[in-house]
Amino acid sequence: MPVVTFLPSYRKVEVERGTTVLEAAQKANLNLNVVCGGQGKCGKCVIYRQSGETEFDREKYALFFTPEELERGASLACKTLVLGDLYVEIPESTLIQEQKILMESKAADVPVLPSVTKYYVEMSPPTLEDPSPDLTRLLWRIEKQGGPSVRKIFAPLPILRELSRTLRENNWMVTATVAIVPGGYRLIHIEGGDTQARLYGAAVDLGTTTIVVTVRSLIDGAILAVASNYNRQIGTGEDILSRVNYARKSGLARLQQLAAESINRALHSACNMAKIDMDDIFELEIAGNTVMTHLLLGIDPEYMIAEPYVPVVRRSIYTTAEHLSLDAHRTAGVYFFPSVSNFIGGDVVGDILTCGMGEREDVSLLVDMGTNFEVVLGNKDWMFSCAGAAGPALEGAEVLFGMRANPGAIEKVRIETRPFQVHYETINQIKPRGICGSGMIDLLAELLRSCFIDRTGRLDITSSNPRIRQGEYYPEFVVVPKDDTEIGKDIVITENDIQNLIMSKAAILAACYTLMDAAGINKDDIGMIYLAGAFGNYLNRLNAITIGLIPEVPVDRIETIGNGALAGANIALINRDRRNALDTIAHEIAYIELNADPTFMDRYTSSCFLPHTDLSLFPTVEKMLAECRLRKEE
Amino acid sequence: MPVVTFLPSYRKVEVERGTTVLEAAQKANLNLNVVCGGQGKCGKCVIYRQSGETEFDREKYALFFTPEELERGASLACKTLVLGDLYVEIPESTLIQEQKILMESKAADVPVLPSVTKYYVEMSPPTLEDPSPDLTRLLWRIEKQGGPSVRKIFAPLPILRELSRTLRENNWMVTATVAIVPGGYRLIHIEGGDTQARLYGAAVDLGTTTIVVTVRSLIDGAILAVASNYNRQIGTGEDILSRVNYARKSGLARLQQLAAESINRALHSACNMAKIDMDDIFELEIAGNTVMTHLLLGIDPEYMIAEPYVPVVRRSIYTTAEHLSLDAHRTAGVYFFPSVSNFIGGDVVGDILTCGMGEREDVSLLVDMGTNFEVVLGNKDWMFSCAGAAGPALEGAEVLFGMRANPGAIEKVRIETRPFQVHYETINQIKPRGICGSGMIDLLAELLRSCFIDRTGRLDITSSNPRIRQGEYYPEFVVVPKDDTEIGKDIVITENDIQNLIMSKAAILAACYTLMDAAGINKDDIGMIYLAGAFGNYLNRLNAITIGLIPEVPVDRIETIGNGALAGANIALINRDRRNALDTIAHEIAYIELNADPTFMDRYTSSCFLPHTDLSLFPTVEKMLAECRLRKEE
Repeated sequence: MPVVTFLPSYRKVEVERGTTVLEAAQKANLNLNVVCGGQGKCGKCVIYRQSGETEFDREKYALFFTPEELERGASLACKTLVLGDLYVEIPESTLIQEQKILMESKAADVPVLPSVTKYYVEMSPPTLEDPSPDLTRLLWRIEKQGGPSVRKIFAPLPILRELSRTLRENNWMVTATVAIVPGGYRLIHIEGGDTQARLYGAAVDLGTTTIVVTVRSLIDGAILAVASNYNRQIGTGEDILSRVNYARKSGLARLQQLAAESINRALHSACNMAKIDMDDIFELEIAGNTVMTHLLLGIDPEYMIAEPYVPVVRRSIYTTAEHLSLDAHRTAGVYFFPSVSNFIGGDVVGDILTCGMGEREDVSLLVDMGTNFEVVLGNKDWMFSCAGAAGPALEGAEVLFGMRANPGAIEKVRIETRPFQVHYETINQIKPRGICGSGMIDLLAELLRSCFIDRTGRLDITSSNPRIRQGEYYPEFVVVPKDDTEIGKDIVITENDIQNLIMSKAAILAACYTLMDAAGINKDDIGMIYLAGAFGNYLNRLNAITIGLIPEVPVDRIETIGNGALAGANIALINRDRRNALDTIAHEIAYIELNADPTFMDRYTSSCFLPHTDLSLFPTVEKMLAECRLRKEE
Repeated sequence: MPVVTFLPSYRKVEVERGTTVLEAAQKANLNLNVVCGGQGKCGKCVIYRQSGETEFDREKYALFFTPEELERGASLACKTLVLGDLYVEIPESTLIQEQKILMESKAADVPVLPSVTKYYVEMSPPTLEDPSPDLTRLLWRIEKQGGPSVRKIFAPLPILRELSRTLRENNWMVTATVAIVPGGYRLIHIEGGDTQARLYGAAVDLGTTTIVVTVRSLIDGAILAVASNYNRQIGTGEDILSRVNYARKSGLARLQQLAAESINRALHSACNMAKIDMDDIFELEIAGNTVMTHLLLGIDPEYMIAEPYVPVVRRSIYTTAEHLSLDAHRTAGVYFFPSVSNFIGGDVVGDILTCGMGEREDVSLLVDMGTNFEVVLGNKDWMFSCAGAAGPALEGAEVLFGMRANPGAIEKVRIETRPFQVHYETINQIKPRGICGSGMIDLLAELLRSCFIDRTGRLDITSSNPRIRQGEYYPEFVVVPKDDTEIGKDIVITENDIQNLIMSKAAILAACYTLMDAAGINKDDIGMIYLAGAFGNYLNRLNAITIGLIPEVPVDRIETIGNGALAGANIALINRDRRNALDTIAHEIAYIELNADPTFMDRYTSSCFLPHTDLSLFPTVEKMLAECRLRKEE
């Protein structure tokens, strides 16, 4: 069979002739960026053939490449067949970047109080004087060692069936695993010898596109590995609606299986990295949106997508790994975060848990940004929430040179006017390939501050600055000239891009104000603004205010929490009290339907300005813009 | 295929040629007496061919029949092959008699408080104004109708998976079944329409030889049917020891399966009689001895039969029907009675529950009689227990004309001396075929009272009474001359039979005194004596005292409770509070090992007299015997 060697790692794998390079890479445990699930549609899984024979239809997929790239051997991994021994380079931008996770800090204060505990016990063998039953003998030792009292632990039938053999084969020295499940303590596993140190859990961010898994020790809470994988359901449809439709047509079982396989693959990578056995994972916490949660559970989401939009279940759910075909210990408890509504899912509850707004007196505003955004306002006594579509502009789509936060993405921009200069930074400090969300926010703010655009987002085409020009369809601003780029083209932002970005940010800002008005709160009452979402990590907080993405508060009251779903799942995994509070938190959050709110459209229209029609809401920005205008007029 | 017609019922069944008549009868739902499990060893399944062709080895099984019986077409159902259309008579003695159950009276005071409840709910369909999740909508209605509060009910994954479809297909009118399981409330079933009236439970006496099942309504507690079946494990060995050995050699799975099949067959008969669907049985209570409990659960009993005699589990056990392959609703809770020791099993705990001794101030003595006996002494604050082997004499074995309490058995005997006459009654008032336990107790007491035997059990061979004669091996007393019997032989009791009976009763009496001495109690402190066991129903209480089977107390302080295991299972089925108290009861009973008690043998030797060496323990009997002696000497 042909051998494929991946560069730069020199990882090797043997595959059947005719296998795709994508499958070969997966076999080699390399996670490639395949947003479309390997359909040749997203153009993300770019590879470069170094030597060897492959089959690839260059004409069909030409739009994804520059001629230079094709020259260098570029192709799509998902559509390239291995015909013989092969050397192939995987550029960094094609590898799925393990997302930076902020939970280290957030989860640091969380006391380690998992819901599963191991007890290593040594028993004296039974005698005529002490012929207590095997179960009593075991449970009594567990109680003596500080575990729950004998009569409080439920022993299920499978454990009873193996108990006598396990105890005797291991000379009365065994490790018992006791979990707190809904209803009380349960003996879930017994094995020979002292395996107390081998007790792990997994926190899972179950996203529509990407699945991220953290594997942790349940002894000290140490994070052992983080791995991600695209959600293999993508092959059945990229958005939630098409997945639900697929489920209706072709059955839920396939989607359940794909979700489980995706998690299993990430779990497998993480366990490989951490050098632990998947069978030693005794708990999983899963935070996902309402539809993804239904699909992984194999629960029908059909009635969520048509009037009156009803889910089967919103509360938290407990089941075991074997019922979901997850590759952890068969009896491992699997906990799903509760949701608030169809659009405020377990992922947002994860954000809330991560930022801790539900435990505080002062009012916090949480904004989870993405193609769909969610906003939550409140404190420990009350919370309002809403959700809506922002469009994909802030995530890099619908923007000519937009891209995700992958290597080569411009993530920071600063424009100096005297002398004119555009400063930028890219992820991994390589030549720029495009602009990601945080870069676009910077760009908008800087263009506004430099008076290259006005508050409606229109480019000053009359400007003498050569970077502003008429493009093929729209006026555009050249961010990086082609010689300085990785892609051999000018990286520009067009007036149309700017409009798309403004509409995105306007929806979010209008949602924030809708909740604030519902609660009778103004911006000065807000103690903290938490920003969640993939690009939240690198956000320039002042610029986010400058463009009116969020209400104006002092920048030290803005905090990014990154992947709040994953961080929340991590907190719940480590601390059962926090997890047990989730249902109460979720239950008490009111959901406001923006489409049914007659004032939302007005607020949206007023927000389609930089930062807003009413500058009195953004006094600092008003002052700054006045100064910039003055400086320009000098 | 040949048709077999059973008389006198004229039930018909079509079977393959070569099928045994036993299998045909089982297919026709006739329960034949097959103590040996169809091995041709016990001779209980006698049938009479009326017409048609069969195959049966008359010589091989000759010992079971008189020539007259063979003449009349007798054979063993288990060894008779059907070769063509057949008419066959099943004599009443071959049919398993549904045991009389005393629980009607005992269970009458028990409030109906089952652990499973059905709620018929009609919901308004979801609207845009009320889009609550399906689960909330359902649970909220259950709460409104007096059920547990929404957040207290756990909904397992299989229910969530079918919920949306079931609600919609049934127009939002469904019946939900909620069970209280260890840990709390659990939604175990949902079905369309109002099925509230169809809620049943089964109480099971899981005996080593026989299984008896009661099917009851869980709405009003009504007993709908009682059915029994032999324990099909008998084919693997008649006693507990041989079953455990079989499990060791050939695996537990087969024994588990046989026990489940036996229960299923009885359940099937009972459900047929009651005209209910087995799928509407939502709870089972099972009382069995410790080994039978292990075997039905598929838990290894191996270490119970060798030093130091350790069971895997003694506490009560909860599992569901699907885990044991029991033919009830898949999710039906199956509860097993706890045991006290290897020899004081769930069946005895059933006796204790039935007689209610654990709730009373005054001291009760419970005696469960059989080949193995169990004795419990105590009140609501303390209990002592012990167990031992009495031998099978009181159950009809090891006694020449002994038999079980089946039709034709002499169950009552009275001897008049002037003029001499033996009065007797048989079960079903037919000609006598043998003597069952209660008849033998009467016989011993009457022979003693008539001075035909002395207090050591020796027959007065010098007597002029022609009924006393020298038999083939031993002196014997003719109870019924052959012309008056069904079997064409004199029914006699020999001196050897009497010795066997005395040794049996001595073991029981010695056990009673061992516990009384351990507790520092004398006979006058005993408030009640409860007699359990198959033959307890018909026992002459005065005669039981006369022969010294139990300590002397006023006869109105003696009560027979019949099949206490079955009655106890019935109480637990109907009232969950009583069931929940079982573990505490069982936990607090001390077990005294008779073999380890040096005084037991002395007490046994002293008890090998009628009623005892020390007549001062039986003052009434002493007085009566003195009077009888006087009357004789007149």
